[in-house]
Amino acid sequence: MRSTHADDLAMLVAHDQKRFFLRLEPGKDFQTHHGILQHDDLIGIPWGSEIRNHLGKCYYLLEPTLRDLLLNIKRRSQIIFPKDIGYILLRLSIGPGKTVVEAGTGSGALTTALAWMVGQPGKVISYDRREDMQALAYRNLKRVGLEDQVEFRLHDIAEGFDETDIDALFLDLPSPQIYLPQARAVLGNGGMFGSILPTANQVSALLHDLQRNDFALMEVCEIFLRFYKPVPERLRPTDRMVAHTGYLVFARAIIPEPQPETDASNADFTPAKPKR
Amino acid sequence: MRSTHADDLAMLVAHDQKRFFLRLEPGKDFQTHHGILQHDDLIGIPWGSEIRNHLGKCYYLLEPTLRDLLLNIKRRSQIIFPKDIGYILLRLSIGPGKTVVEAGTGSGALTTALAWMVGQPGKVISYDRREDMQALAYRNLKRVGLEDQVEFRLHDIAEGFDETDIDALFLDLPSPQIYLPQARAVLGNGGMFGSILPTANQVSALLHDLQRNDFALMEVCEIFLRFYKPVPERLRPTDRMVAHTGYLVFARAIIPEPQPETDASNADFTPAKPKR
Amino acid sequence: MRSTHADDLAMLVAHDQKRFFLRLEPGKDFQTHHGILQHDDLIGIPWGSEIRNHLGKCYYLLEPTLRDLLLNIKRRSQIIFPKDIGYILLRLSIGPGKTVVEAGTGSGALTTALAWMVGQPGKVISYDRREDMQALAYRNLKRVGLEDQVEFRLHDIAEGFDETDIDALFLDLPSPQIYLPQARAVLGNGGMFGSILPTANQVSALLHDLQRNDFALMEVCEIFLRFYKPVPERLRPTDRMVAHTGYLVFARAIIPEPQPETDASNADFTPAKPKR
Amino acid sequence: MRSTHADDLAMLVAHDQKRFFLRLEPGKDFQTHHGILQHDDLIGIPWGSEIRNHLGKCYYLLEPTLRDLLLNIKRRSQIIFPKDIGYILLRLSIGPGKTVVEAGTGSGALTTALAWMVGQPGKVISYDRREDMQALAYRNLKRVGLEDQVEFRLHDIAEGFDETDIDALFLDLPSPQIYLPQARAVLGNGGMFGSILPTANQVSALLHDLQRNDFALMEVCEIFLRFYKPVPERLRPTDRMVAHTGYLVFARAIIPEPQPETDASNADFTPAKPKR
Repeated sequence: MRSTHADDLAMLVAHDQKRFFLRLEPGKDFQTHHGILQHDDLIGIPWGSEIRNHLGKCYYLLEPTLRDLLLNIKRRSQIIFPKDIGYILLRLSIGPGKTVVEAGTGSGALTTALAWMVGQPGKVISYDRREDMQALAYRNLKRVGLEDQVEFRLHDIAEGFDETDIDALFLDLPSPQIYLPQARAVLGNGGMFGSILPTANQVSALLHDLQRNDFALMEVCEIFLRFYKPVPERLRPTDRMVAHTGYLVFARAIIPEPQPETDASNADFTPAKPKR
Repeated sequence: MRSTHADDLAMLVAHDQKRFFLRLEPGKDFQTHHGILQHDDLIGIPWGSEIRNHLGKCYYLLEPTLRDLLLNIKRRSQIIFPKDIGYILLRLSIGPGKTVVEAGTGSGALTTALAWMVGQPGKVISYDRREDMQALAYRNLKRVGLEDQVEFRLHDIAEGFDETDIDALFLDLPSPQIYLPQARAVLGNGGMFGSILPTANQVSALLHDLQRNDFALMEVCEIFLRFYKPVPERLRPTDRMVAHTGYLVFARAIIPEPQPETDASNADFTPAKPKR
Repeated sequence: MRSTHADDLAMLVAHDQKRFFLRLEPGKDFQTHHGILQHDDLIGIPWGSEIRNHLGKCYYLLEPTLRDLLLNIKRRSQIIFPKDIGYILLRLSIGPGKTVVEAGTGSGALTTALAWMVGQPGKVISYDRREDMQALAYRNLKRVGLEDQVEFRLHDIAEGFDETDIDALFLDLPSPQIYLPQARAVLGNGGMFGSILPTANQVSALLHDLQRNDFALMEVCEIFLRFYKPVPERLRPTDRMVAHTGYLVFARAIIPEPQPETDASNADFTPAKPKR
Repeated sequence: MRSTHADDLAMLVAHDQKRFFLRLEPGKDFQTHHGILQHDDLIGIPWGSEIRNHLGKCYYLLEPTLRDLLLNIKRRSQIIFPKDIGYILLRLSIGPGKTVVEAGTGSGALTTALAWMVGQPGKVISYDRREDMQALAYRNLKRVGLEDQVEFRLHDIAEGFDETDIDALFLDLPSPQIYLPQARAVLGNGGMFGSILPTANQVSALLHDLQRNDFALMEVCEIFLRFYKPVPERLRPTDRMVAHTGYLVFARAIIPEPQPETDASNADFTPAKPKR
């Protein structure tokens, strides 16, 4: 039966759904304005236990899920939301052992999810021009024990990426179309490109330039997540919801067939077989 | 530069987005009613190449993404869609090395995504009563090379699961509330429970019984995915979309605090510290 | 050119979209914490004028639209929203000269829209058990000059409606299924029935009983309204939206065909021609 | 009790929801490939009657609602949908006695709804350059008895509208921004402007020019309508839905305040009081 240990990352969830994250450390205490809990009382007990503090307030002691971790990122910028990250993972074919590049790092929400999913044999390489954002993202990753899966690069991707032949690239930047030559160069042939953009105008600008930079199979979509009040005899959606986080844009890095020359017309089949 | 090899699973995507999946095999040919391609012409060339067959029809030669694989599952039952699977993965905290149980297997779409994400150190255990469905799911997994991550169990979960202390459980069954005692038993404390249900009535029935079977923190949601036509100068959503796949229900396996006894009121702190 | 007159109902809209409603009265002043405007300066000028008060704050002086009036209802209960009311009007075939019954009155938002649309030759009859709600609705109607189109009935519809042969009926009540015999009796043959309900459980209960009370052609739907920030170079949806107001349920009052008797089988055509 | 009469417009709805519209005429018959009904058997019976033809197929005999009429418009162009029309009516404050201008006429769906709602004392003036479309719209209106509420103008609105001081204007044209000077001229001060546009690029272009043509209080929105299968014990949305019809754009015709002159700064209040 699984129990908590010293140094585990834990989450206390009050009955009103309020969440608190803490690293369990012998001798410490956990204070809210609803009372105090001793870490020692939380160590060595089963995960999932319902805990009551000295004021009678109850909490569930739980391992945070990846979704919980993402929503709890310390942020200094707009983060990408779980609803979008889940689909990005499938769309970019992220999984154990993959190598993926992202820019910019931001607060590190997508970085966290990518690091989680590529696992120990994989690698996330994260570019940003701002040292403070990378420091924040590093702290966010370290807090959840995923810092070893990520390499940070502190430089402007306008100068190009250090890598080549990468499985997937995600650009979370205001004007990704500016960097498409660099994006095409970092991706392996057939590689997956993704981006998230808040405005329709940005989507148009990106689509326009993807076509001219050897990308194809563009997909644009948006994802809505609607929650319900989990009351069995009065099932209904919540009153309000997030209406928009961003438009997701995906494409594949391709090698266009050379335009057929006029005198090549006698060939039955003209493979686009470039030199390797 | 990455190129195709014999025995690779490949995808040919026509300019009208039509997709064809094939395992590259020397000497074989690939026929559609738009013409023929020789596998030998597709082996050893860069991924991402644009290919023209003898009738002038063009295709991109690509590695399928996880999303492509999921949409291409041979199905004999309703599959779970990528938009839902992406969120399920985050919500159940699936990742490299995790052990997850699902029932029923169905055609194996979720099984495929779970197997992909848990990777070699992980394990998916999939229950179904129907041998034909498991055979189909096995073929689907084998086709994409993920069959080693999955153990099939051909028996009725009403009799209980073979495992205990599992990270996460997903039930894709018409009446999951019937199996909640078994579900609680297979999950480790604090374990993640998920389900997908097409009707509101089923959601009510499940919520009602989750409360009585030591589950807490219920979440009900639905996910909409809306595609746009990727035309930069005329950006607009597609005319039609999927309006509903299912309601997602999530919960955590908890250990409720024993009701405080009347004479225990002098205790400052009453941890719900069960025997381990 | 159209200008304001004393006694007109006017709306002042600040540049931040904040709305103020006022009846123009010579000699009065209009105060906000952003400054004062004299009504006399607002009377006899063109509608649509941009007005600046002595502190430099600007407003547009406008006739409120029906949508504005509905959102500005003084409310003591949940009102029905314009997005839903617009569709209800089409679905119940409301228009000049129609007679429509509603219960309950509530704060009078739907009452206002119905009164507006049926016009002088039409009639809205509004039932509620609560005198205070009807008084509130009356004040709301009087404020916008629509009180003559509405007759209030202060009694419980469990005892039946006073009317018969009505074009359309709308029930905005927690348990409309209780009143279906009365609802069927107030409607003319073929009459339109509508209701709005917040929970899925209520919808199921209503649908179940509509079938047994001589209603047919049931329709259930929900309407989402998503706003965009009206910025041409940064077009994007607002961050948040209303996720749910209610499920709309519609049906038609029908006369079911009598079950064919066994010896009537020689008739070529069996019209369900009841006595008139 | 209300019954059908000769010359009534009627709707027969089969149990599978298939709808047929017919004008009741003594002596005629109504044929489908499911059998024949005599009009004489449909005249003089109560509305709402369930009717069985000689092959046992059942229909409900109903007055079409406005929604039914709109969906049954004979169309040669994309029509505006009821979900959008309902909101347009509220947003433009359409009602009995109003005068409203629209361009282009198209197949006449919005024309029909406007004509219905303004009633006998009101007026719809509908512009189109194409005579064939106006002929079609006229036939659609005549079929439902609303042709007297509509005046058609067969000319290009680039040359301006014949009217001035109109309550509301709706432009259903690909490039409404071209006609904004004309639009501002036809509207009374404070008048309501509306448009529907399929692409985000068109919305940006329109918003950009509204600001420069004395319009203010722009609103952009889109409306989703999701249907449910009306089965009480298995309540769930339909599988598919319309994802997009168009973006709705609304604005008010305003008179901007003249820029304050430098020497006017001693005035306590500077009303934008233009000549009348």
